[in-house]
Amino acid sequence: MWAELRPVGRDAGSGGYRRYAWTGADTDCRAWFRAQAEARGLTYETDRNGNQWAWLGDPSAEDAVVTGSHLDSVPDGGAFDGPLGVVSSFAALDELRRRGAQFTKPLAITNFGDEEGARFGLACVGSRLAAGLLTKEQAYALRDADGISLPQAMEAAGHDPDGIGADPERLARIAAFVELHVEQGRALDLSGDRVGIASAIWPHGRWRYDFHGEANHAGTTRLVDRRDPMLAYAETVLAARREAELAGAVATFGKISVEPNGVNAIPSLVRGWLDARAADGVSLDQVVEGIRKAAGEYADRHGIDLAVTRESFTPVVEFEHALRDELARILGKQTPVLGTGAGHDAGILAASVPTAMLFVRNPTGVSHSPAESVEEDDCVAGVLALADVLEGLACR
Amino acid sequence: MWAELRPVGRDAGSGGYRRYAWTGADTDCRAWFRAQAEARGLTYETDRNGNQWAWLGDPSAEDAVVTGSHLDSVPDGGAFDGPLGVVSSFAALDELRRRGAQFTKPLAITNFGDEEGARFGLACVGSRLAAGLLTKEQAYALRDADGISLPQAMEAAGHDPDGIGADPERLARIAAFVELHVEQGRALDLSGDRVGIASAIWPHGRWRYDFHGEANHAGTTRLVDRRDPMLAYAETVLAARREAELAGAVATFGKISVEPNGVNAIPSLVRGWLDARAADGVSLDQVVEGIRKAAGEYADRHGIDLAVTRESFTPVVEFEHALRDELARILGKQTPVLGTGAGHDAGILAASVPTAMLFVRNPTGVSHSPAESVEEDDCVAGVLALADVLEGLACR
Repeated sequence: MWAELRPVGRDAGSGGYRRYAWTGADTDCRAWFRAQAEARGLTYETDRNGNQWAWLGDPSAEDAVVTGSHLDSVPDGGAFDGPLGVVSSFAALDELRRRGAQFTKPLAITNFGDEEGARFGLACVGSRLAAGLLTKEQAYALRDADGISLPQAMEAAGHDPDGIGADPERLARIAAFVELHVEQGRALDLSGDRVGIASAIWPHGRWRYDFHGEANHAGTTRLVDRRDPMLAYAETVLAARREAELAGAVATFGKISVEPNGVNAIPSLVRGWLDARAADGVSLDQVVEGIRKAAGEYADRHGIDLAVTRESFTPVVEFEHALRDELARILGKQTPVLGTGAGHDAGILAASVPTAMLFVRNPTGVSHSPAESVEEDDCVAGVLALADVLEGLACR
Repeated sequence: MWAELRPVGRDAGSGGYRRYAWTGADTDCRAWFRAQAEARGLTYETDRNGNQWAWLGDPSAEDAVVTGSHLDSVPDGGAFDGPLGVVSSFAALDELRRRGAQFTKPLAITNFGDEEGARFGLACVGSRLAAGLLTKEQAYALRDADGISLPQAMEAAGHDPDGIGADPERLARIAAFVELHVEQGRALDLSGDRVGIASAIWPHGRWRYDFHGEANHAGTTRLVDRRDPMLAYAETVLAARREAELAGAVATFGKISVEPNGVNAIPSLVRGWLDARAADGVSLDQVVEGIRKAAGEYADRHGIDLAVTRESFTPVVEFEHALRDELARILGKQTPVLGTGAGHDAGILAASVPTAMLFVRNPTGVSHSPAESVEEDDCVAGVLALADVLEGLACR
């Protein structure tokens, strides 16, 4: 399966993946998914929100067991973040058929659309829509860097955007959703385990910081006459690091947009995006408020108008304890249980559906980079663990 | 003249100008220049380096008096930076004809190509080529953000790039070059004068800072495991301000490029451009070395590889004292004489040709911004001063 998927959306320069929602690379990934489903005689469908489903058994029956992940990527992402879960799902089904497993419940494999939010700035759009956590109106207002709206992009890719929105009937038919994902840290590597079970997803969010100054000539404007927003931005980047250290959290400014962005022009606008996460909501509030306060003080000092917009927020997600314990029973009590700072469709669906996650060891912890890697033995261990879990849940 | 030029290359959103070298907007500006020349019965030509000339009298004669400026702009630049000098040149010629002035020397009006360097990152490309300060090989290596080379861009705009390079015969025929320009500071406004004469251009340069770190997931990578180049960039931005304050100079980071530039990705590369200027070369060296040293220390601390590249440098330019004194004689001894931190084609040509500059009052000092402004009375005063100077130099 990897051989066909590997070249899709890969940038020859960086070696990283650029599979953004509703682009040509995304369409190619979706075609791959459909081909995998049809090659296995599964019933294929795309739901109203553009998520893909491959069914073994009756798609309209109750009590379905669902597994899968996403195929889109961050800019210059790695090969495994997302695709490992989808590929492992098909491989686990192959393994169960090899074992001659008798399914007592319908099984579905999914590819959720636009998990990374690389194009429209909001993560997990496909699952958020289905879960009713993003309204049709909000989704219609999303635009990419070129000003193309989400419905325009869907339409251009051949998906009718008119039907998007909450899909409670579909979610109500799911008895359990299990997402397998490459670990995005080094906990399993440090403990020497190949596979782990998720306990919780840290609360996390994105905030846009707009520093408005005054464009002027970089050569002739006296320092005292300047209202340079880059200075306030720089101080805020350093404040974010300090506040995160204090709270044992993480805070990152990884994306920036500058106007006019000329070598000899003081910027009129520096727009920076803060990504912040912490183990609990109180710590996260402390970090976010600390950064906002520091930024406000710097902005005042430099004559800068600051506007901070919360673009997304996901509270702490505790995965259902009963399902988590069931996974631990199936995989053995020695299987490590770990938290994560990364968001996932599983985190979105956890509010509506009993949900669990499996993590596969990442030897370097590197994620969202072409350098992300997984060892083959660990991939196999992940597939077998997922097969065990699906057998335990769907063949009882 | 302004009515036809005003809409060309103007962005409807920002109200600023985006007239980048060898683009459609630049072609439209060039067509405007040619039309102005032909409407006045002047002999039009484009030189080998893509600079435009409109001649009154014999283009091949010695002892020519030349005036003009540029029509290209920085991103979202103002209406006057460049065009004021070209429009005033045509208007001054109209004024001299109205006066019935008898020209004893050839007069040329010029539009130098790619003064701002907004597209290819190097300022004053047209005058640098002519003066032999930029070789054909160096010019061929220039590329814009889309990877298009300067010769490709010239060719696409209908100019044969094969002939570019030093043009000493043309420059040797120039007895005096006078460039009129809107002031890019508030000195004239503070002294209450409409027009001033330039003394010198501060030495200045551009340095590219490449901070190479390691791309990783912003949610799951522990702070201690990060090599985040944005932190070293931020500390360097603040160091630049401190070093400039210490030396009474200016230093600006106004342009940035980040890879992969995703909200939830620690960057692999942050590329920032430093623009630094000071009243003399010793002060400038002190500022530039201070910033580089601070950046190197921050980079080491954050595990960042730093590469600093000097992309351009222009030493201090003292305008010819004899010509400057002649202008003061023509305009009156009370005319203020002032230095500037901005680079100009006049500064490039000063090494080869007797060169002077006139500045017109800028009531706010704002430059390289749509908010740049000049009052109409001051424009008229500039035209009359330029007419007086040209009459004094070319009608003796």
